[in-house]
Amino acid sequence: MLAIMIGVTACATPAMQSNVSETVEQQILDAARSGSQGYLIVEGLTTEVGQRLAGTEAEARARDWTVEKFKEIGLQNVRVEPFTIPGWERGVETATIVSPYPQQMVVTALGGSVATPFGGVTAEIAYFPTFEDLVSAPAGGLDGKIVFISGLMDKAPDGAGYGPANQKRRSGASEAAKRGAAAVVIRSVGTDSHRFPHTGQMRYAPDLPKIPIAALSAPDANQLERMFEREHSVTMALNIQPRASGDMPSGNVIGEIVGTERPDEIVLISGHLDSWDLGTGAIDDGAGIGISAGAAQVLIEAGLKPKRTIRVVAYGAEEVGLLGGFAYRDLHKEDLINHVLATESDFGSTPAYEVLLGVTEGQEVIKAAADALGLPMGERGTNGGPDIGPIAALGVPTMRFQQDGTDYFDLHHTPDDTLDKIDPDDMAENVAAFALMAWLAANAETDFRSDTGN
Amino acid sequence: MLAIMIGVTACATPAMQSNVSETVEQQILDAARSGSQGYLIVEGLTTEVGQRLAGTEAEARARDWTVEKFKEIGLQNVRVEPFTIPGWERGVETATIVSPYPQQMVVTALGGSVATPFGGVTAEIAYFPTFEDLVSAPAGGLDGKIVFISGLMDKAPDGAGYGPANQKRRSGASEAAKRGAAAVVIRSVGTDSHRFPHTGQMRYAPDLPKIPIAALSAPDANQLERMFEREHSVTMALNIQPRASGDMPSGNVIGEIVGTERPDEIVLISGHLDSWDLGTGAIDDGAGIGISAGAAQVLIEAGLKPKRTIRVVAYGAEEVGLLGGFAYRDLHKEDLINHVLATESDFGSTPAYEVLLGVTEGQEVIKAAADALGLPMGERGTNGGPDIGPIAALGVPTMRFQQDGTDYFDLHHTPDDTLDKIDPDDMAENVAAFALMAWLAANAETDFRSDTGN
Ligand SMILES: [Zn+2]
Ligand SMILES: [Zn+2]
Ligand SMILES: [Zn+2]
Ligand SMILES: [Zn+2]
Repeated sequence: MLAIMIGVTACATPAMQSNVSETVEQQILDAARSGSQGYLIVEGLTTEVGQRLAGTEAEARARDWTVEKFKEIGLQNVRVEPFTIPGWERGVETATIVSPYPQQMVVTALGGSVATPFGGVTAEIAYFPTFEDLVSAPAGGLDGKIVFISGLMDKAPDGAGYGPANQKRRSGASEAAKRGAAAVVIRSVGTDSHRFPHTGQMRYAPDLPKIPIAALSAPDANQLERMFEREHSVTMALNIQPRASGDMPSGNVIGEIVGTERPDEIVLISGHLDSWDLGTGAIDDGAGIGISAGAAQVLIEAGLKPKRTIRVVAYGAEEVGLLGGFAYRDLHKEDLINHVLATESDFGSTPAYEVLLGVTEGQEVIKAAADALGLPMGERGTNGGPDIGPIAALGVPTMRFQQDGTDYFDLHHTPDDTLDKIDPDDMAENVAAFALMAWLAANAETDFRSDTGN
Repeated sequence: MLAIMIGVTACATPAMQSNVSETVEQQILDAARSGSQGYLIVEGLTTEVGQRLAGTEAEARARDWTVEKFKEIGLQNVRVEPFTIPGWERGVETATIVSPYPQQMVVTALGGSVATPFGGVTAEIAYFPTFEDLVSAPAGGLDGKIVFISGLMDKAPDGAGYGPANQKRRSGASEAAKRGAAAVVIRSVGTDSHRFPHTGQMRYAPDLPKIPIAALSAPDANQLERMFEREHSVTMALNIQPRASGDMPSGNVIGEIVGTERPDEIVLISGHLDSWDLGTGAIDDGAGIGISAGAAQVLIEAGLKPKRTIRVVAYGAEEVGLLGGFAYRDLHKEDLINHVLATESDFGSTPAYEVLLGVTEGQEVIKAAADALGLPMGERGTNGGPDIGPIAALGVPTMRFQQDGTDYFDLHHTPDDTLDKIDPDDMAENVAAFALMAWLAANAETDFRSDTGN
């Protein structure tokens, strides 16, 4: 109730409701909604760079591209904050049913997976309908087998199905290795029924053998399940040859609209620059780059000068473990107290349907933005987005526009994540939200922290 | 007007309107609509065989599978009519933009294409927005270039967009070779926006150099067009290594319900057994196999004995030039006069929205089937389907259930042509149509020919 009361009170404060303020706010919304700033940025990035896997020369080209773009749209203090990551690159990948029904399947290695032995591994498949079935299987008994973990993912606007479905991707290799398996194939973590595999990062538990793990497309996982309905024994030849490429460069690209009154205080808006290597990273997360940089562009083009600094961050190496987010945290550790609000767009290009709070004070400012955008406040809290998580954990206030991700996992981490999936009007609406929120936060009296003045 | 009068008259003939006849007709429709005969056949074929490219050992396994299935459902005289085709198999295929924006594209060789030189060809791209633009280009001027032919395909229930869009696939290589080009990439002939290329057979004109030709997915074609909006010069490295594999075996699989009174007279229902190699050939044309064999199965299970023979044909090697259809024509040349009606399903699994006539007499029988199914008669004529064309040209009467192909070319000839795209209820409705039509034609007095008794 307190939160609601604050919100109601906020709507009546003179600062928020003055005609001047309303005019500027409306000007921002109109400029964003009638413009193409965000769409043109994601179009440029996905066309002129394409895929940009973390640590590769393609990600380096993406940084160069972004530095140029940030300068071109008028951002100040444009720079790269470099860091080093463990490189990983994809190689050959094939999955062949040897018996009883010989045929090829569509497969892709999960990020971080080791390779199969050269030439691949051929073994009988042990089928587990769900990840839980594997976890509850006894120790041993899978010696030398290829484990197949299936299990469907539910669709939801907030992506609630992703966490549960993702357990097999994150932990499937080690759970299978613990029981003696030679390799793992999973049903892709996704909600589509197209013949695309979904990649994504996996993790090895310490002190267990590292075995290769790959994802089958949904139609291939269905096919394999039908084979098990017919036969008890199915043999697969799996050959994936990714390689760890040692220390490789990554980096966060930063640009700013320097504040006129409190330039040291930062409102941070962001997306991540790296993508998986299969698609061109349009919805994940070229959209987030376009939304955050496009929002800054709208303010610059309107000649608006925020009191605080608005900082745009294009994080590197998000996909492989939020490495850009952690690098930012480490480099800016001493300065995090000056970060007044931070957010990220990393859930595609569909507009928000609600606004989430990760602040204890100043909620009225965020609610004013939500009101102006016609968005309700959500019940859940937020840590601001994947790359914001590390600084949110150290006290940086956050908020998030909860974009509608109902269809996000149809495309997520597949070859089909391409520009044609993005609606320019959707991008404009997201840019409007980011521009308005950044503007209001940069000019608000509050610093969104409960310990202000302590 | 005459045709319409005949139809109206037919509805009043005692044979068609008797209660006994109506009961049998309804029994057939009910059995098909409540059954899964067709769906289970396409499920089995696509699961237990998978892709079955013409001339390969996979197509041979598909013939074996079909012989067993035909016997299992109770067809008589089950046999393979073998023939030989020029084999062709896919190899490595990559398309890389070298400059100005280095990246991989998704590409597939068109059926029948020659290979690039070993290691590929790297050349500047000459961009033609449409096939017509290429055809109207002057001789020469494309020396050593890779020609890119774009152009969109319209969606239509009857697939009317396919013919025009397909010109670049059929004739693009020779039109480009005529002007000195080294290779061709086309925008896939299809109506989707997924990152799947559409393969399909191409043709070389005699007396012109044979140059390699491949298809880009729609998102990649869009990407290439955006590159040309930005830069005048785009360079691609294209490497496709398909090979002609010499004379290879194919064959048509045949099974019958032998007629009780006129066993030498044939009502032919069919689909084609081969598929392209990228998907599992569910909609093209596992569905047609399921629909035609499933229709026969419905009649057999109901214990119905047709007066004429109902022949089910699973044609081989349709995709590579209707070779099964031509082989059937040649082998049965002397017997075509006894083929009273022939049809094929080769347009996916969606039910029909109209019925097309390729007969001059006996239209009332086909209209009676259409009436019972609630389908209107279409205006256009038909040759009965691709594999029926060769015998229709020699006078065999035909009809066709015009299935709704609005979305057919989203999946056609792509890796995404898999079983999950087929609705079992749709299959049942198609089976109902084929079973009823076969039954009525097999028991009709007419032989559907205008020259009867001459
Ligand atoms: Zn992301
Ligand atoms: Zn991602
Ligand atoms: Zn076909
Ligand atoms: Zn076809």
